[in-house]
Amino acid sequence: MMDEDIMETGTYHDRPRTFPNMRSKPYTPLIFRILLGINVRVLFILLLLGFGAIFYMGASTSPIIVFVITICILSFLVAIYLMKWVLAKDEGPPEMVQIADAIRDGAEGFIRTQYGTISKMAMLLALVILFIYLFRSTTPQQEAAGMGRTTSAYITVASFLLGALCSGFAGYVGMWVSVRANVRVSSAARRSSREALQIATRAGGLSALIVVGMAVIGIAVLYATFYVWLGVGTPGSMKVTDLPLLLVGYGFGASFVALFAQLGGGIYTKAADVGADLVGKVEQGIPEDDPRNPAVIADLVGDNVGDCAARGADLFESIAAEIISAMILGGTMAQRCKIEDPSGFILFPLVVHSFDLVVSSVGIFSIRGTRESGVMTPTEDPMAILQKGYSVTIVLAVLAFGLSTRWLLYVEQAPSAWFNFALCGLIGIITAYIFVWITKYYTDYKHEPVRTLALSSSTGHGTNIIAGVSLGLESTGLPVLVISVAIVSAYWLGQTAGLIDETGNPTGGLFGTAVATMGMLSTAAYILTMDMFGPIADNAGGIVEMSQQPESVREITDVLDAVGNTTKATTKGFAIGSAALASFLLFSAYMDEVSSFSREPFKQVDIAIPEVFVGGLLGAMLIFVFSAWACAAVGRTAQEVVNEVRRQFIERPGIMDYKEKPDYARCVAIVASASLREMIKPGALAIISPIVVGFVFRILGYYTGQPLLGAKVVAALLMFATVSGILMALFLNTAGGAWDNAKKYIETGALGGKGSDAHKAAITGDTVGDPFKDTAGPSLHVLIKMLSTITLVMAPIFL
Amino acid sequence: MMDEDIMETGTYHDRPRTFPNMRSKPYTPLIFRILLGINVRVLFILLLLGFGAIFYMGASTSPIIVFVITICILSFLVAIYLMKWVLAKDEGPPEMVQIADAIRDGAEGFIRTQYGTISKMAMLLALVILFIYLFRSTTPQQEAAGMGRTTSAYITVASFLLGALCSGFAGYVGMWVSVRANVRVSSAARRSSREALQIATRAGGLSALIVVGMAVIGIAVLYATFYVWLGVGTPGSMKVTDLPLLLVGYGFGASFVALFAQLGGGIYTKAADVGADLVGKVEQGIPEDDPRNPAVIADLVGDNVGDCAARGADLFESIAAEIISAMILGGTMAQRCKIEDPSGFILFPLVVHSFDLVVSSVGIFSIRGTRESGVMTPTEDPMAILQKGYSVTIVLAVLAFGLSTRWLLYVEQAPSAWFNFALCGLIGIITAYIFVWITKYYTDYKHEPVRTLALSSSTGHGTNIIAGVSLGLESTGLPVLVISVAIVSAYWLGQTAGLIDETGNPTGGLFGTAVATMGMLSTAAYILTMDMFGPIADNAGGIVEMSQQPESVREITDVLDAVGNTTKATTKGFAIGSAALASFLLFSAYMDEVSSFSREPFKQVDIAIPEVFVGGLLGAMLIFVFSAWACAAVGRTAQEVVNEVRRQFIERPGIMDYKEKPDYARCVAIVASASLREMIKPGALAIISPIVVGFVFRILGYYTGQPLLGAKVVAALLMFATVSGILMALFLNTAGGAWDNAKKYIETGALGGKGSDAHKAAITGDTVGDPFKDTAGPSLHVLIKMLSTITLVMAPIFL
Repeated sequence: MMDEDIMETGTYHDRPRTFPNMRSKPYTPLIFRILLGINVRVLFILLLLGFGAIFYMGASTSPIIVFVITICILSFLVAIYLMKWVLAKDEGPPEMVQIADAIRDGAEGFIRTQYGTISKMAMLLALVILFIYLFRSTTPQQEAAGMGRTTSAYITVASFLLGALCSGFAGYVGMWVSVRANVRVSSAARRSSREALQIATRAGGLSALIVVGMAVIGIAVLYATFYVWLGVGTPGSMKVTDLPLLLVGYGFGASFVALFAQLGGGIYTKAADVGADLVGKVEQGIPEDDPRNPAVIADLVGDNVGDCAARGADLFESIAAEIISAMILGGTMAQRCKIEDPSGFILFPLVVHSFDLVVSSVGIFSIRGTRESGVMTPTEDPMAILQKGYSVTIVLAVLAFGLSTRWLLYVEQAPSAWFNFALCGLIGIITAYIFVWITKYYTDYKHEPVRTLALSSSTGHGTNIIAGVSLGLESTGLPVLVISVAIVSAYWLGQTAGLIDETGNPTGGLFGTAVATMGMLSTAAYILTMDMFGPIADNAGGIVEMSQQPESVREITDVLDAVGNTTKATTKGFAIGSAALASFLLFSAYMDEVSSFSREPFKQVDIAIPEVFVGGLLGAMLIFVFSAWACAAVGRTAQEVVNEVRRQFIERPGIMDYKEKPDYARCVAIVASASLREMIKPGALAIISPIVVGFVFRILGYYTGQPLLGAKVVAALLMFATVSGILMALFLNTAGGAWDNAKKYIETGALGGKGSDAHKAAITGDTVGDPFKDTAGPSLHVLIKMLSTITLVMAPIFL
Repeated sequence: MMDEDIMETGTYHDRPRTFPNMRSKPYTPLIFRILLGINVRVLFILLLLGFGAIFYMGASTSPIIVFVITICILSFLVAIYLMKWVLAKDEGPPEMVQIADAIRDGAEGFIRTQYGTISKMAMLLALVILFIYLFRSTTPQQEAAGMGRTTSAYITVASFLLGALCSGFAGYVGMWVSVRANVRVSSAARRSSREALQIATRAGGLSALIVVGMAVIGIAVLYATFYVWLGVGTPGSMKVTDLPLLLVGYGFGASFVALFAQLGGGIYTKAADVGADLVGKVEQGIPEDDPRNPAVIADLVGDNVGDCAARGADLFESIAAEIISAMILGGTMAQRCKIEDPSGFILFPLVVHSFDLVVSSVGIFSIRGTRESGVMTPTEDPMAILQKGYSVTIVLAVLAFGLSTRWLLYVEQAPSAWFNFALCGLIGIITAYIFVWITKYYTDYKHEPVRTLALSSSTGHGTNIIAGVSLGLESTGLPVLVISVAIVSAYWLGQTAGLIDETGNPTGGLFGTAVATMGMLSTAAYILTMDMFGPIADNAGGIVEMSQQPESVREITDVLDAVGNTTKATTKGFAIGSAALASFLLFSAYMDEVSSFSREPFKQVDIAIPEVFVGGLLGAMLIFVFSAWACAAVGRTAQEVVNEVRRQFIERPGIMDYKEKPDYARCVAIVASASLREMIKPGALAIISPIVVGFVFRILGYYTGQPLLGAKVVAALLMFATVSGILMALFLNTAGGAWDNAKKYIETGALGGKGSDAHKAAITGDTVGDPFKDTAGPSLHVLIKMLSTITLVMAPIFL
C-alpha cells in the first residue's frame, strides 16, 4: 500500500501548478455587496441616522446606553477600515486565486445550505415559543406593569429571532473574512512573515470586533427598545430591574444557532481532515494539503466553516449569555438592596465589553507589519508578537475594568463595594491567565505531559491512545481547582462588599461571581482575534502547499500555523472557564424566574429527592450521549470521505503522478451533505431532552402531589449537565490538543521522527483527537450555555 | 519487524513441552492448610460449637438471626463439599502442572505482598478513625443509650477491621480457588467440554458461596454481638433501630480493601496483558498465550489476581454496602412509622441474601457434568447451560423474595405494604435483566453496535478508536433511563405502601428503592459464579495453549473462554446498577447521620449555593482524575513490560525457535512491583479527597458563618461523583467490551479476518479497552461505594 517512493521523484515545481476553476458562479450576499460598495456620502448619511437614533434612545433611557452604542458603532468603523485594508492586499498569482476561489465557493455554499436548515429550525422553534408564551401565566411583575401574555410572547420571540439572526451573521462574518484573508496571507508570505502575520491578525481582528460589537449593540438596542416601548420608569409600569429577564430570548436564539453552526461546521472540518489524512498521509504517504489528495479542498473549506464561522457564533453566544446573565443578577441585586439608580449595575456588563472593544483594537493595531518596523528578522517568533499585543491589551483592560467599576458600581450605601467588585474582576482575569497556563502545560510539547505522550507512542498505537485518554482525563483536575477557588473567592468578595438587602443579609455574592466572569472575558475581542488567526494561517499554509510555492514560503506559513494551534487551544480554555461561570449565573437566573412565575419561593434544588437525583443522572447522561453522537458523526462522515478518496485513487491511477486531476468538488459535496445530515441528531437531543424531562416530571409531580417537581428536576439536569459538560469538554479539548502536539513533537525529529513507528502511532492519536477537540469539545461549550438559556425560555412548560 | 513466517514452520507438538519448575517454595496459608486437613471429628466439634453460639445469640436477639447464621453455615458446608469435589479432580499431565504451579506461585506471591501493603494502610487508617472518634461528639441516641465516645470509637474501629479482614479473605478465596481450578479445567477439557464447564462452574460457585456467605454472616454476627453487648432492647439502652448505623465501619473496611485489591489486581492483569500482546501479537506475530512470550505467565497470573481476587472483594463489598444501607433505611423507617417489632425491616436484607445462597446453590448444582447427563454433544453451547442454571435460580429467587417480604415486611398498620415491597423487588430483578440485555446489545458482536465498530476498523486505527469511544459514551443512555425509571417507580411503590409517620406523611419511598436494590442482587451468588467462571476458563485456555495440547482441546477451552467474556461483561452491568442504587441509599443514610450528630435537621443539599456547586465540580473531577490515573498506571506498567519483553527477544534470539527459554519470573516480578507501586496514587486520591474537601469547607463555613457547610459540600461531592462515576464506568466497561468483541468478530473471518489491516486496527482498540474495562471501570464501581461509606465514617470531621 505504501507509496513513499513517489515522494522522492523530485520537487513539486516541475508539476502542473494550475487547477481547474471550480467556481460555479461568483457569489456575494447582498449585504456584503452593499457594504463593500459603500461610498463616503452614503456612509456619512448612515452615520448621521445612527447617531440620531442613539441620541433619541439615550435621552429616553440612560447615558450609559449612548456610550455603549457609540463605542460599538466606532468599532464597526474600525472594522470597516480593517476590511478595506485587508481586501486591498494582493491575492497573489492565479494558481493561488484559483485555489482560494474553490475554498471560498465550498465554504459559502456550505454555509448557505447550513444556515438555510438552521433558519428553518429557528422559525419552527419561534412558533413553538410563541405558542407556549401565549398560553403561559404571567409574573406578578409583568401584571403590575400591565404587560399581557401577547406582549410577553412577542418580546420573547422577537428577542429569540434577533439573537438567532445576529449569531448567524457573526458566524457568517467569521467565514466571509477568513476565505478572503487566507489567500492574501499566502501571497504576503512570499514577501515577509511579518506582513503575513499582520494580515492574518487584522483579518481576525475584523471578525472579532464585529462579533463582539454585534453582541453588545444587539443587547443594548433591545434593552433600549424595550425600555422605551414598555415605558419603564414611569409609574405603574415595569421596573428597570425586571427588564433584563426579557432579554433571555436573545441569548437562547444566539446559542441555538451557535450550537448547530458548531456541530455542522465541526463535523465538516474534522470529517474532511480525518478522511483526507487517513488515505493521504497514512495509506498513500503523501504530505498534508497535497494537491493530489481529492479531499484536500474539503479539508481547507472545513477550517473556514468549522473554525472561523462556528467559533464566531460560539464566542458571540458566550458573550451574549454572559452579558444577559450578569444584567439579570445585577438587576436582582440592585432591587434587593434598594439601590436608587440600578442602571449602573444592570448596564455594567455592556460597558465592560465596550471597553473590551477599545482595548482590543489597540492590541490589534499594536501588531505592525514590515513597513512600520523597518527591519525584518526571519527568526522572529510570531507567538511573541501576539503575546506582546495581548500584554498591551490586558494591561489596558485591567485599567478600564477598574475605571468601569468605580464609574458604575459606586453606591453611597457601600462606598467600598466597587473596589471589592474590581477585585472580583481581577480574579477573573487571573483565572483566565492560569487557565491559559494550564492548557499550555498539558498541550505544549515543551512540557512533560506531551513528551510522555509522545514516548508512549513508541510502544504502539494502543499505548498512545491510553496515555492520551489518561492525559485528557487528568487535565480536568487543575482547571476545576482553579475555577472552584475563583467561584468561592469572588462570591466571598461580593458577599463582603457591603451591600445588604432589606433583612440585613449581605447579597452581593452572586454578582461578585458575575463580575469575575466579566473580568475573564474582558479581553474577549483580542482572544477571538488570536483564535481566528489560527484557521486563517492554516488555510494560507494549505494554499501555499497546493500552489506549490518554494520551501521558504511554506516555512513561513508553517510557523504561523503552529502558533495558530496554540492560540486555538488557549481560546478553548477561555470558552470553558467562562461557560462554567456563566452557567452558574444563568442557573441563579433560572431559579429567580421560576420563583416569579410560580409565585412560590424556589430557592433550593435538593438532590436528596429521588426525582431530582434522576434529573441529575439524566443531565450527565445527556452530555455523554451528545459527545458520543458528535464524535460518531465525524467518524461516519470521515468513512464516507475515506471510501470516496480510495475510490478516486483506484479509478484514476494517474492522480499520484499528477497526470489526472482529482475530483475535489465531489469530496466537498459529500462532506457538506453528510455534515448537514449528521448535525441534526445531537442538536435535536440537546434541545428536546430538557423540554421533555421538564414536562414529564411536571406531569409526574402533578399526580404525586409534588409542586414544582418539573422545575426542580430540570434544575438538577442543568447543574449536572453543566458540571459533566465542563469536565468532558476539558477532557476532549486537552486530549485532542496533546495528541496533535505529540505528533508535531515527533515530527521535529524526536523518537525516530517522521515515518517512524512512533510517528504512525502519533498520527492515530491525532486522528482520534480531531473530533474530540474540534467537534465534540467546542459543541459542548455551546451546549452548556444553550441548556441554561433554553431552560430559562422554556420554564413555563415545567411549571 | 514482522516475523510471521515462524508461524508456518510447523505445529507446536514437535516443540519441547515442559517448562522449568518456577516454584520458589510450596506455600499455602495456615488457615487453608487447616481447612484442607479438616477431618470429620474436628468438623463435628466445630459445628457443635457454632450451633451453640448461634442458639445463644438467637435467644438474645432475634430468631431471624438464627435463621441467617444457620443458612450461612450450611452454605459454607456446601462450599467445603464443592472444594473437596474440585480438588479431587486430576491436574493432568506434568507439563500442565508445571505451568499451573508457576501461575499459582505468581498469584500467591503477588496477593501476599499486596495484602501486606493493604493491611498496613488499613491499620494506619484504623488508628486515624480511632483518634477521630475519641474526639468526636456523640449523638443524642448514643447518649440516651449511655454509650460513650470510647465505646463508639472501639465499635467503629472493630467493624472497620472486621470488614477489611473479611473483604481481604473473600478476595483471597477467589484467587485460591481459581489457581487450583484452572489446571483441573484444562485437564478435564482433554476429556469433555461438559466436564470442564462443570468444574469451572463449581469452582466459581465455591468462591461465590464463601464471598456472599461471609458478607452476610459477618454482618449478622456483628449485629448480634452489638445487640448483646449494648443490651439493646432493655430500658435505657440503645434502640434496635439505631443499631445498623454502627455497622458502617464494616462497609468502609470492606470497600477500602476492595478498592486497593481492584486497583492493584486490575493494573497487574491489564499491564501484563497489554504488554504481552503489544510485543507478542503485534510485533512478533505469535498467538496469545504462546509459551515463547516472556510475559505469558504474568498475563495468566493477572487473570487470577485481577479478575478473581479483585472481583471477589468487589462483590463482597457491594453486598455488604447494600445490606448495611438497607438495614439503616429499614431501621429509620420502622422508627418513624412506630412499627412495634422493627427487626423484620432491619434484618430483611440478611434474609434476602440467605435465600440468595440457597437458590444459587440449587442453580450451581443444576449444571451437571457428563457422567450424569450421559450423552455428550460437542456442539452444545455452554452459554445456554449457564443461562438455564440462571433461569432456575431466578425463578426460585422470585419465589423466595415474595416469601421473605410476606414473612418480614407484613405489618398490621399497612397490611398490603409487603406486596408493594415485593413489587419493588420485582422491579429490581427486571432492571437487572434489562441491564444484562443492554450490556449484551452493546458488547455482543451479534448486534449492530459492535458490527459497526468492526466496520470502522477497516478505515484504520483512528476511526476504530473514535467509533469505540462514541459507542461507549452512547451506551450510557439506555442504562441511565432504565435506572431512572427503576428509582422513581420503586420509590413511588414504597411511598404508596401505606406506611405513614407520626405526621401522616407516607415514608416508605426510600425503603422501596432499597428493596429494589435487594431484588437486583437477589441472585448475587449465581452471578458471581458466572463471573468467576470467566477467568478460570481463560486461565485453563492459557494452560492448554502453553502445554501445547491438541487443537481439539484448545477449541473446547476457547469456547468456554468466549462464554466467560460475556458473563464478565454482564456482571459489570449488575455491579454498576447496584452501585447506583446503593449509593443513593447510603447518601440518605449519610444525611440522617449528619442530622443525628449535628443535632440540626439536615434534609437538603442545595446545589444553588456556590460552595455546594464547587463540591459537585470537585466530585465529578475526582472521577475523571481517578480514571486517568488508573488508566495511566496500566499504560506505564505495560511499557515496562514491553521494554522487558523486547529486551528478552533481542538478548535471547533463540526464544522464537524454542531454543532458549524466556525468563518468565522476571516479567512476573516487574509487573508485581509496578502494580503495587501504581495502585497507591489513585487509591490515596479516592480516600483523601473527600476528607480534605469536607475539612476545608468546614473551616471555611466556620469563618463565613455557614453551619454544616462541610457536610453539605461533601454531600454534593458524593452525589456528583456517584453520577459521574456511574456514567464513566458504563462508558469504560462498554467501550472495552465492545472493542474486545469487535476484534473477536474480525477473527471469525469478517472484514478480512486475522492478519488484515482491519484486524490490526481492532487489536489497537482491544488494547485501549483493556485498562478501561478491567482496571478503571471496575475500580470505579468500588470507588463509588467507598465514597459513600467513607463519608459516613468520616462525617465527624466535616461537622
